[in-house]
Amino acid sequence: MKEFFKVTDLKQVLKYAADFPCVETEEIPLHETSGRILATEIVSDINLPDFMRSTMDGYAVRAQSTFGASEGTPAYLNLKGSVDMGTVPSFTVKAGEAAGIPTGGMLPDGTDSVVMVEHAEAIDDVTIEVYRSVAPGQHVIEVGEDIKKGEIILSVGRKLRSQETGLLAAFGKEFVKVYRRPVIGIISTGDEVVPITDIPVMGQIRDINTYTLSGLVKEAGGIPVSFGIVRDDFDDLFEKSSAALAQTDMVLISGGSSVGMRDFTTEVLSSLPDSGILAHGISISPGKPTILAKAGNKAFWGLPGHVVSAMVVFAIIVRPFIEQIGGLSPQHEKRPKLTAFLSRNISSAQGRVDFVRIRLIRKDGVLWAEPVLGKSGLINTMVKADGMIEIGINTEGLDKGTEVEVIAL
Amino acid sequence: MKEFFKVTDLKQVLKYAADFPCVETEEIPLHETSGRILATEIVSDINLPDFMRSTMDGYAVRAQSTFGASEGTPAYLNLKGSVDMGTVPSFTVKAGEAAGIPTGGMLPDGTDSVVMVEHAEAIDDVTIEVYRSVAPGQHVIEVGEDIKKGEIILSVGRKLRSQETGLLAAFGKEFVKVYRRPVIGIISTGDEVVPITDIPVMGQIRDINTYTLSGLVKEAGGIPVSFGIVRDDFDDLFEKSSAALAQTDMVLISGGSSVGMRDFTTEVLSSLPDSGILAHGISISPGKPTILAKAGNKAFWGLPGHVVSAMVVFAIIVRPFIEQIGGLSPQHEKRPKLTAFLSRNISSAQGRVDFVRIRLIRKDGVLWAEPVLGKSGLINTMVKADGMIEIGINTEGLDKGTEVEVIAL
Repeated sequence: MKEFFKVTDLKQVLKYAADFPCVETEEIPLHETSGRILATEIVSDINLPDFMRSTMDGYAVRAQSTFGASEGTPAYLNLKGSVDMGTVPSFTVKAGEAAGIPTGGMLPDGTDSVVMVEHAEAIDDVTIEVYRSVAPGQHVIEVGEDIKKGEIILSVGRKLRSQETGLLAAFGKEFVKVYRRPVIGIISTGDEVVPITDIPVMGQIRDINTYTLSGLVKEAGGIPVSFGIVRDDFDDLFEKSSAALAQTDMVLISGGSSVGMRDFTTEVLSSLPDSGILAHGISISPGKPTILAKAGNKAFWGLPGHVVSAMVVFAIIVRPFIEQIGGLSPQHEKRPKLTAFLSRNISSAQGRVDFVRIRLIRKDGVLWAEPVLGKSGLINTMVKADGMIEIGINTEGLDKGTEVEVIAL
Repeated sequence: MKEFFKVTDLKQVLKYAADFPCVETEEIPLHETSGRILATEIVSDINLPDFMRSTMDGYAVRAQSTFGASEGTPAYLNLKGSVDMGTVPSFTVKAGEAAGIPTGGMLPDGTDSVVMVEHAEAIDDVTIEVYRSVAPGQHVIEVGEDIKKGEIILSVGRKLRSQETGLLAAFGKEFVKVYRRPVIGIISTGDEVVPITDIPVMGQIRDINTYTLSGLVKEAGGIPVSFGIVRDDFDDLFEKSSAALAQTDMVLISGGSSVGMRDFTTEVLSSLPDSGILAHGISISPGKPTILAKAGNKAFWGLPGHVVSAMVVFAIIVRPFIEQIGGLSPQHEKRPKLTAFLSRNISSAQGRVDFVRIRLIRKDGVLWAEPVLGKSGLINTMVKADGMIEIGINTEGLDKGTEVEVIAL
């Protein structure tokens, strides 16, 4: 029995991510920030809102003027005027008085609450009847109630969603400093691989991995750059690898699952300037024949040729590296996962972490994870899958009915 | 008590989505398909793979030649040659013979399985010892095992992930017919709203909604087009609305929560050519003062001005409409939701569907949904939220510990 790999533990490999530096930052227009990673702390320089606003159409009052009011014994208030949107009211309101106010309008001096228009009625041009009492602060947004001046509103490393973009709009941030998207080079290898525009002859297959990996890189927030297909040849691979390394932040070589190609990949990774191999084989399945090297301060991956293996390694290992160099703060990405119940027993080998493709099925109100069977060379198994589940390194398998966390695919 | 809205039931409003036609289709390069909606059925025109492939480095054999082989009593086979990647082997292999084969290599005629290189040893240039028996079909991918010729591999309306892109690559689809992204016009209204580049004076606020809604439109697969801010003026709003309607597939007016502005919006929606109001008020909270009109064959929305209300209405109602006109098949989007346990009691009014912002907290291994309190004018409550939960129309509230489904935000 030969042993080809001195495999590295999955957890150890993931720790190497911290060895790679973040990409630089850039200023981009606010409307392009969705999904990007914030590279600067945002501190509030104003109170939001900066004035007391009404949350309802109605009448701005001093709350005490309404105390005890009911349908049977309404409070009668003198109409002092009407608030125009977007302007400062030119009058003040005293006890026993009220002012018409639209939703979003600024409360006049002297008022602390708003009576909803549904709970009042104008008797004539200068008097209203109020049928319900309000408490101070009712139906208003106080100064600084959304955000207080001086508050840290967003921290470095946060992924910006639509609401964060909206918050930045509220503070007038026309341009925002974010990490630029990491550029990821992709090289396909193998004498049997042909461009997708070719009609493969017997023994050949089209280049699936470049397209699959490019899609995954985009989903991870990166920019994929394809360097095409390299034959099983040291010089070609070395040249393409050097070019990719010079032009990108990280390189993924896929293929080379055959011994010869694997040897080339290892040799090339060792021959690059200032390089060292960090892991040659990782204790996961599928995906064991994965190589991680460091060239200068960039990560350089030899991914398995089987498309499923390459996708699993990407989802579990490469993606966290891309997020790390892309500036994403890990604390912001620890999002909880969907759970489901395993629909059948699964066996697993100890000493490695297994990732099993599953399809989600709802039956009698219960969500089941049903394993999608098939070899790691079959892309159709990924097309049928909704996600993956992890079987721990010290587990011999999982029983039907076990609750499992689903890694989305 | 006045009643401003004759509210429409949420389910009824969602049913209107089917009244709006899909956008046209377009052909795009394969590498741009990630996240797009397929507009054509894809039928396999080849077997995938088209030849029997090895999944391991090793020796291609006729399985019966290895029956009974073990470490103690190895089988001795004559080496017939070696398979080169990407080519058709020029020899056949008979009983008692073997051929070296790399992972992904084509099996020579006469073989049906592969002995892993770990389970064999070359004695000399023409003979190998085999220590384990293999079964027919072992360590090979059969012809058509991934996809059979003539199989429907992807159907219309499917959202394309990386693996679907990879599958299309395997079939040489350099260009793919997808629905074009729906173009969504966004108009902000209100005399108090100023562009984000302005410094608001007292009584004014910056235009948050245009940015928030633009982000949400992108996440929903659409292309947002901003038509700026319109003052509370019928003619201006009519003109901008007409322009937006002519240039886009759907229009979102936000703001106009005040009675006056709401009246303008209703009037404008009624005055547009070939238009009718489908819903004026929807039985949800927040988001009740939402207007849906049909102008020609396009949906035209009057969304609440409060940013949280507008986001909730978008997530729950507008997004399904965008997906519908964008060609997404509903069966492909019924993805299960994360569940969590409610951290405290929540009360709710009957007769409407309530959406409560929540933050997810893991404590003692249990995932809790903790309500984020705050008025619907406070964007910070959305920034703090991980999701929302729904409280049904006939429910008075939910008890602490209830298991709830989380709508991601």
